[in-house]
Formats: sequence, C-alpha cells, structure tokens
Amino acid sequence: MDQKLNELKTILAEVADLQHAAAVLSWDQQTYMPRAGAEARGYQLATLGRIAHQKFTDRKVGQLLDDLRDAFPPDSDEYALIRVTQREYEKRIRVPPEFVAEQAQVTAAAHEAWVAARSQSDFSLFEPHLARILDLVQRYIGFFPPSDHPYDILLDDYEPGMKTAEVQAIFSELSKRQVRLVQAISQAKQVDDSFLHFKYSIPKQRAFGEKVLMAIGFDPNRNRQDQSPHPFCTSFSINDVRITTRYQGNFLNTALFGSMHEMGHALYEGGFHPSFERTPLASGASLAIHESQSRLWENLVGRSMAFWEFFYPKLQKKFPAQLGEVSLGKFYKAINKVQPSPIRVEADEVTYNLHIMLRLEIEIAMVEGAVALRNLPELWNEKMKEYLGVVPPNDAQGVLQDIHWSFSGLGYFSTYALGNLIAAQLWEKIHSEITDLSAQIRRGKFDALRGWLYANIHVYGRKYEPKELVRRVTGSSIDPAPYLRYLETKYRDIYEL
Amino acid sequence: MDQKLNELKTILAEVADLQHAAAVLSWDQQTYMPRAGAEARGYQLATLGRIAHQKFTDRKVGQLLDDLRDAFPPDSDEYALIRVTQREYEKRIRVPPEFVAEQAQVTAAAHEAWVAARSQSDFSLFEPHLARILDLVQRYIGFFPPSDHPYDILLDDYEPGMKTAEVQAIFSELSKRQVRLVQAISQAKQVDDSFLHFKYSIPKQRAFGEKVLMAIGFDPNRNRQDQSPHPFCTSFSINDVRITTRYQGNFLNTALFGSMHEMGHALYEGGFHPSFERTPLASGASLAIHESQSRLWENLVGRSMAFWEFFYPKLQKKFPAQLGEVSLGKFYKAINKVQPSPIRVEADEVTYNLHIMLRLEIEIAMVEGAVALRNLPELWNEKMKEYLGVVPPNDAQGVLQDIHWSFSGLGYFSTYALGNLIAAQLWEKIHSEITDLSAQIRRGKFDALRGWLYANIHVYGRKYEPKELVRRVTGSSIDPAPYLRYLETKYRDIYEL
Repeated sequence: MDQKLNELKTILAEVADLQHAAAVLSWDQQTYMPRAGAEARGYQLATLGRIAHQKFTDRKVGQLLDDLRDAFPPDSDEYALIRVTQREYEKRIRVPPEFVAEQAQVTAAAHEAWVAARSQSDFSLFEPHLARILDLVQRYIGFFPPSDHPYDILLDDYEPGMKTAEVQAIFSELSKRQVRLVQAISQAKQVDDSFLHFKYSIPKQRAFGEKVLMAIGFDPNRNRQDQSPHPFCTSFSINDVRITTRYQGNFLNTALFGSMHEMGHALYEGGFHPSFERTPLASGASLAIHESQSRLWENLVGRSMAFWEFFYPKLQKKFPAQLGEVSLGKFYKAINKVQPSPIRVEADEVTYNLHIMLRLEIEIAMVEGAVALRNLPELWNEKMKEYLGVVPPNDAQGVLQDIHWSFSGLGYFSTYALGNLIAAQLWEKIHSEITDLSAQIRRGKFDALRGWLYANIHVYGRKYEPKELVRRVTGSSIDPAPYLRYLETKYRDIYEL
Repeated sequence: MDQKLNELKTILAEVADLQHAAAVLSWDQQTYMPRAGAEARGYQLATLGRIAHQKFTDRKVGQLLDDLRDAFPPDSDEYALIRVTQREYEKRIRVPPEFVAEQAQVTAAAHEAWVAARSQSDFSLFEPHLARILDLVQRYIGFFPPSDHPYDILLDDYEPGMKTAEVQAIFSELSKRQVRLVQAISQAKQVDDSFLHFKYSIPKQRAFGEKVLMAIGFDPNRNRQDQSPHPFCTSFSINDVRITTRYQGNFLNTALFGSMHEMGHALYEGGFHPSFERTPLASGASLAIHESQSRLWENLVGRSMAFWEFFYPKLQKKFPAQLGEVSLGKFYKAINKVQPSPIRVEADEVTYNLHIMLRLEIEIAMVEGAVALRNLPELWNEKMKEYLGVVPPNDAQGVLQDIHWSFSGLGYFSTYALGNLIAAQLWEKIHSEITDLSAQIRRGKFDALRGWLYANIHVYGRKYEPKELVRRVTGSSIDPAPYLRYLETKYRDIYEL
C-alpha cells in the first residue's frame, strides 16, 4: 500500500506544482504584468490548466484510489487524502473535456459582456450570455446523480457536504432578525464617519497597515503584500503565501480592513500541516471556513473596541490632522457605521448577509427555472427593497454588480454569509478557552489567538469536511445564534437601541 | 504538410508555454519571492522542466520533423522552424534522462559548494565538485559525434555552428592588440572618476535611468524593470519582456549602464516577428548575437560622447552637488576609465575581452585534460598577470569569481567577447546606412537605430544561424577588425596616446 500511496502522491505533487505555477502566473497578471502580456498569459494558463487536468484525471489515479480506498484508518491523514482526492477525481471525470472547453469559451465571452453591460448599466447586454451560462449550469448538474435539490450540486463544489435546505434554514432564521436590526438602526441616531473620508496619504496608510499586519502574524520570510485592483490572497506553498490590497486616498477602511481580511486567509493558507505540502490537503476545508478566517480578523478583531484601544493612538499619531480631534469612541462607531447600500462589497456587518440571502434566493429561482432572466433586474430590486430598504439607482449597482455569474460561479455566494456565522461561532469558543483574549488584544497581543486558530483550524487543512470541522471545534453544527448574539449586542451598544 | 506543421506547432506552443511559465517563476524567485518559498519553487521549476522536456522529446515530434524536413523552401520561416527544432530535438534525445537528472544533482551541490568556496576564498572546497562537473562535461561530449575539437560540442550549445578553432583565431588576433592597448594606457595619464563614486540617491538614479530607458525604447505596456541582486533580462512573450537592475548608492555606473545593457537584450526579445510567438524561433540567434545587442546599447551608445551631449545636462540637473562642476569631457572620460582589475563583470571595454580569453584557454585545457584542477588557481593568476598585468589577491577574486562552471556552463564565456565584436561590426554598418546617426543620438533620438536593429536583427529571431545572420547583415564573417578600430580610436583619444 505504501508504494501505491507514494505513486499517488507523486502524481498529486506534480499536479500541485502545476497549479501553484498557474497561481504564480495569475498573481503576476494581477499585480505586475505589463498589459500587452495578457494574450500570452492566457495561453500559458490554459496550458498549465489542461496538463494539470490531464494528469489528475488519468485512469491511473482512479486505479490507485480504488486500491487505496480502505487501506488506512479513518482518522489518518492518508485516509483524508484519499477521500478528498476521490471526491475531486469523481467530480472531474464526470465532466467531459468538451464541456470544460465550451465552458471556458462561454465564460470568457460572458465576462467581456458583463464588463460592457456593467459599464453601460445595461442588463440586456449580459442576459443572452447569462442564458448560456445557465444552460451550462443545468447541463453540469445533469452530470451528477440527482440530489435533494439541483442547487445542491452547485453548492457542494464550494461547500462540500452542504445542502441547499440547510442553508435556507439557517438564512431564514437570520434574515428576520437582521432585517429587524437594520430597521431599528435606520430609526436611531446616525453615526458620523465623515473623517474616515478625509485625505489619507497612501504611503502612510501602507506603513500603518504593515504594522498591523506584522502584529497579527505577517512574516516577511513567508508572506508578501502587493497591490492589485481586486484584493486577493494566493499561495504557492505553505511557505509562500501572498496577499494584495488596494489603497484609496480618501478612505481609510479600504486598505486597512481589506488587508486584515486577506491576512486572515493568508494565516490559514500558511498554517496547513507541513506534511500536506504538494497534496490536496494543503487547502482550506471550504470557502465558508476560509471566509470565517478572513472575517474573524477583519471584523471580530479589526472592528472591535479592544483592537483599537491598542492601535488607535498609533493611528492618530500617523494622521494627526485627520484624527487628532476624533475620540476613540467616535472612531469605533465610525468604522462600524451601518449604512444600507446597494453594493455588497461595501456592506457593513449588519447588512452584509442580507445581500447574500437575496442572491441565494435568486440563484435558486434561476436553477429551478422559476424566473425569466429578463425579469432579474426587477426581482433584484424588489428583494433589495424588502431586505435592505434601498433600491439600486441602476443595474450596474444592482443585478450587474458581481462578477460571479459571468464565470459560472452559481453556488458561491452563500459561503460568504456562512463564513460570518462560523467566525462568530469560533469567536465564542475561543473566548471560552482564552478567557483573557480581549485583554490580550488590548495589549496588541495576538499570539494566543493565532495559535488557537492554527491548532484548531489551520493545521487540518482540508482533512475534515467543513461541517465536521465546525462540530469538532465548537461541538455544534453551523449555527446563526452566535452571530446574531454578536451583532445584536455590538450594534445595540453602538446605536444605543 | 500543413496539418503536420500544425500538429508540430501545437506541441511546440505547449512547450513554449511551459518554458515561459518557468521563466515567470524564475523571475519571481529573483525579484519578489519570500525566502521560505525557495524549496517549493524548486519543485515547481523541476516539474515544469520535466514536462516540457517530455513533451519536446516525444517520439511524435521526431516523426513530424522527419515528415516535414524538406517540405518548405529553404528561406521560409517554416523551414527555419523545422531546422531549429530538429537541431534542439537531436541534442535533447542524445542525452539520456538519467544523465540530465544526475547533472541537476551535481550542479545543485556544486553551486552550493561554489558559494561556500567563494565566500571563504578556498578553491579546494570547489575542486571536487568541479571534477564531477568536468566528468559530466566529458560524458556529455561523448553523446555527440566527434567534432574537430571536443570543445566544439560545448560551444555549439551556446553559439550554433561556431568552432573552437574559429574562436581561437579571432581571439589570437584580438589579444595582441588589446594587450598592447592596455599597456599603453597603463603608461598614460590616468583618468579621474572619483566623482562617480560619490553618494547618488537611489530614487534619483532610478528616475534618471527610467528616462534613459524610455528614450531608447522601453514600453511600459510591454516592458517592466524590477530590482534583483544579479541583473537579467527575461521574457514571457514577445509582448512581455522584463529587465532587472541593481542600484549602488555610491556608484552611478552599476544601475545606469546595467539597465541599458539589459534593455539591449529586451529590445531584441521584444522584436521577434509576431508570427514566431510560442515557437522556438522566438529566441535570440545565439548568445553572442544577444550580447551584441546589449553591448551595443551599453557601450557603443551609452558610453559615447554623442549620447552624453544630450543626457549629461539632464544628469547634472539631477545631481548638481555631485556633477555640477564636472565638465562633459571629464564625465565622458570617467565613464570610460580603463582599469585592469581581477573582476570580469567590472571590466571596462578595453580589458573585458582579455578576461574572456583566459577563461577560454583554461576551459579548453580542462576539456583536453591538459591541466590538473588543483593547479587552476595558479594557472588563472599567471594568465591574469600575462594579459592584464594584475594578480587577484585571492581565489574569490580569481578563479572562483564566476558562477558558470558551477552550473556546468563550459563553452559559455566566449560569447561575451564575440558579442562585443559583432556589436562593433553592426555599428560600422549602421553608420554607413544611417549617416547622421551620431547627430540623431546627440538629439536623444534613437528611433532610426532601433528600427535598423529591428529590421536587420531582431525580427529574424532564431531564423538564421549567427554566422549567417552576421554575413547577411554586414557582408562579412565575425571579424575583430571593427572592434579594434573602435577601441583604438576611442581610447587613443581619451588617453591622448
């Protein structure tokens, strides 16, 4: 068995090398590549992707997986490796190469159409492409055995083992209370955050941001931060994990909280067990678990009073003209300002999940064929009005705002909201185990928190399915209660409800 | 035939994509990669190299080449593509994969040993590794049919079609006159270049260097410049060509002339015919031709009076404290100061080739078994004394100074000197066709020069063998006379000989 395992690992290592090489090429494309390099880069990425796919879906891999299926004890890393590889392998071989090629073509055209449609705020330019994508999605679902709901197939790609009905149940509990909270806040005294929109020198923002990143765990020997129009985290090895950020000269939050968000992802990617290097276990358990790590650092740490008790005097010193006269309390309220807006990526903690819920409902309706695509803008705006009390002024700021559908990413959105919920569950658990955590954060100390996340989440990589991981760590299933407790407590205080 | 050509091109395009992907990974490794990423990067590069090798040496490629050999007219691009591919293919399949693997191991260890030996200036630490490398080199030569001289096999890898005897003949004509020139200069009044070693702010050096690069043809849409400890040029596409430079805070020449040198390579890499993209024709004709391009811009343009008549006032404005009182004439002499030194990479135009000649003689002696490796340091120092009149103070600055032998790069060095000669041949030809070139350069205009190089050299990529290319362009074989004319005229003037 050991020889077969080694054979399998050799193939998987080669596939991992190709995927990491592709990740380097993508990173470069988004950070440093001269514009005219794009066409060649497209070919290079396609070639790497094709070879990785061929190697991974080789019949030999299937044979080795069959031979190794029950060869190792269920809690071993080897068992997990084989389970995870089997899962991926079966997904990949069910989808014919011609379909993958067609999908690449359709989404490339759809992406261009989406960019044009959004810039002209004209949904009709995108609609025929979305129709083609929806057709692909239906055919994709058809490659798999029937599930309770066809949408389960899509969800499972991003959130292994998660069912549509489970997400709906969780969201229905959330939505009532989050909508109620939004309404209560809308009638309360509004928060002033005008000083966050003053002019903030970008080199100074960068210097301050780097100090924060170093404090929470950025290691220059293993991490880098670069700039890109759309911030992201990527890794080429457990020991080479990179983030990007973007700076706005007249808004402090973008880079600061964006960097902390990406650093949360980076700590996860850099924390997988070293023995997982070059295997499929060196990966987050799911998108929701990944997002729990980024949200935990961005919001539960980065938007907490304890954090700013330590960092605010330093920030004031950096920006005396902008913040010298602004009290800590005022600053804390400002960075937590609730403001229903049409745009998801600008949403605060209270409204964020509502953006996700409406997307989930619309995606399910699309998959069920319950909505004509030409009516999507109207449906979108109705739901915005219902959940958030705002109506987008145009489709660019409405149904066209997100890139996801253009790359056929139906099934993706709910992981963002689930990540928020899991972050809050972990947060309660961490506080019960590190009882002086707030005091540590007030002193700018994050070692114990990082150590806890490493030992309980990061080190396992993709060894456990997300639901199992959450249960092992918190003793519970994915549960909206901690998030609601957190939200309601925090915002009652901020808005004096 | 067209279908077979397309089949061949599809394979070659895939190989080119893999090689370019590897080039991106190497570029990143030398510019931005966090240190701890090195181990994983080594695996990734090995995987890309292995797959590219497998694909290129596939029996299918050999069959297609056989079928296509005489299918196209001799002056066509298709014919050249098949000839160049055939040449590479035959070289590759002659060398067994086990040899390649052994070579990778031996050179990896040798590189480490060389770094240690150089840092401790102890040749005995490197000697056993060099012995292993020499053994590999001998075995490598044995894979090929006998040539006039065994060293021909090595030379041919870098300089297709070039023979050892030809290089020796050229060098013997050069060496007498270059040695005589060095001696004459050593007895002349010495040039003061102390002001080049003042403190020069690196951001200002960068700003000035970028201005120069833009003037000679740097295109931000297709080029980038980054920093790395050892400057280089690399390309991932005809439309994505990058250079690196390094700055010294107390020496102006390093970055300035280094950037112009790399930009000369970059203009070549970016000038191949667009139809050559993703084929083996998108490459320099040889290392010597490549070096002719870098040396032409670095020395024939960058160290000329005409160039500085335009740029010196701008440089003075940037560095008034350092250069405000230094006349153009004094500056021109300083950047052309001749100073025999033990170190090749710091050598001026007059002494540079002499460094190369002694290396060629020593390499030939090694390959012929005419020198015991333990005597190399002594032999090196004797030849330094003979050619340059200086003796290195230690082996780190003598026989251990260059990296080439540690990567088994015997056969490489002479291309540097040949590049100098070809540059001077081209320079005479260009002046005969662009009769007001000096006047153009004095006005900071380089379009005609760049256009000439593009139309006569760059666009052909690897279509012609280097000797044929030189003959097509200059009507002559590789000839030391123009270089000697250039050197003697220029330095007689500078040193008032």
